[in-house]
Amino acid sequence: MRYKPPVSDPFTVGHKVSFSRTVTDEVVRTFAEASGDDQPLHLDDSFGTRTRFKRRIAHGMLSAGFISAALGTRLAPGYVVVYLSQQLRFRLPVGIGDTITATAEVKDVDIEKRIVTLDTTCTNQDGDVVVLGEARVLLDPLE
Amino acid sequence: MRYKPPVSDPFTVGHKVSFSRTVTDEVVRTFAEASGDDQPLHLDDSFGTRTRFKRRIAHGMLSAGFISAALGTRLAPGYVVVYLSQQLRFRLPVGIGDTITATAEVKDVDIEKRIVTLDTTCTNQDGDVVVLGEARVLLDPLE
Repeated sequence: MRYKPPVSDPFTVGHKVSFSRTVTDEVVRTFAEASGDDQPLHLDDSFGTRTRFKRRIAHGMLSAGFISAALGTRLAPGYVVVYLSQQLRFRLPVGIGDTITATAEVKDVDIEKRIVTLDTTCTNQDGDVVVLGEARVLLDPLE
Repeated sequence: MRYKPPVSDPFTVGHKVSFSRTVTDEVVRTFAEASGDDQPLHLDDSFGTRTRFKRRIAHGMLSAGFISAALGTRLAPGYVVVYLSQQLRFRLPVGIGDTITATAEVKDVDIEKRIVTLDTTCTNQDGDVVVLGEARVLLDPLE
């Protein structure tokens, strides 16, 4: 009999999860501390006003961290989520105070290898797509 | 007369920069706090022993953060470094105590648009390539 997964199964095309976070000054500074990326574009308001954005903006890779959170904490509870690859296009700036929602939607499944390919999108509170891309993860059962 | 940039010019094919950091427990926890990715694979030693890695491992996106640091802080001092895209392949796990060096080497330059394409590589203290990929950045002069 063919295995018919429940709707929430991470091995189902169309399965979709998301993770949201508001990008506060503290979140940006914490990311700068972890990554070592202290470019003043992200940390210095007066520097930010001298850029094309006219304000300081968050690290692009911080939004990518929210994708990591969606995959690591929401996609497949009970599995070990192993990141294989991620493509990222940073389309619009993220400012302090923006609320970013990272969404990951399963679009391809290799059930034998337990590898899932997902469309990954970050949108802001206005619905604008700030980051677009694709992820591949391996879903291991716990030993 | 053809413009001949100095060797250190970020608009020169072959220009190479790097950023190194040791991945301590504190660095991993700080990244988890900023990103919201608190998957126990990254934070819980006993969970880690039940995975294919037999230990807990750092977030893949943390190494990507070190690439962001290399680009944002080392590539082009005096410019605003705007991230356009990043491809990432996570090839090997990074453990607590590993020292990761993110290297970015210019491989293509669009001088009119000021867009630079780079090979991006993260290696560990043994010289193993843990992350492979490609970045595109826009280098703006400060206004």
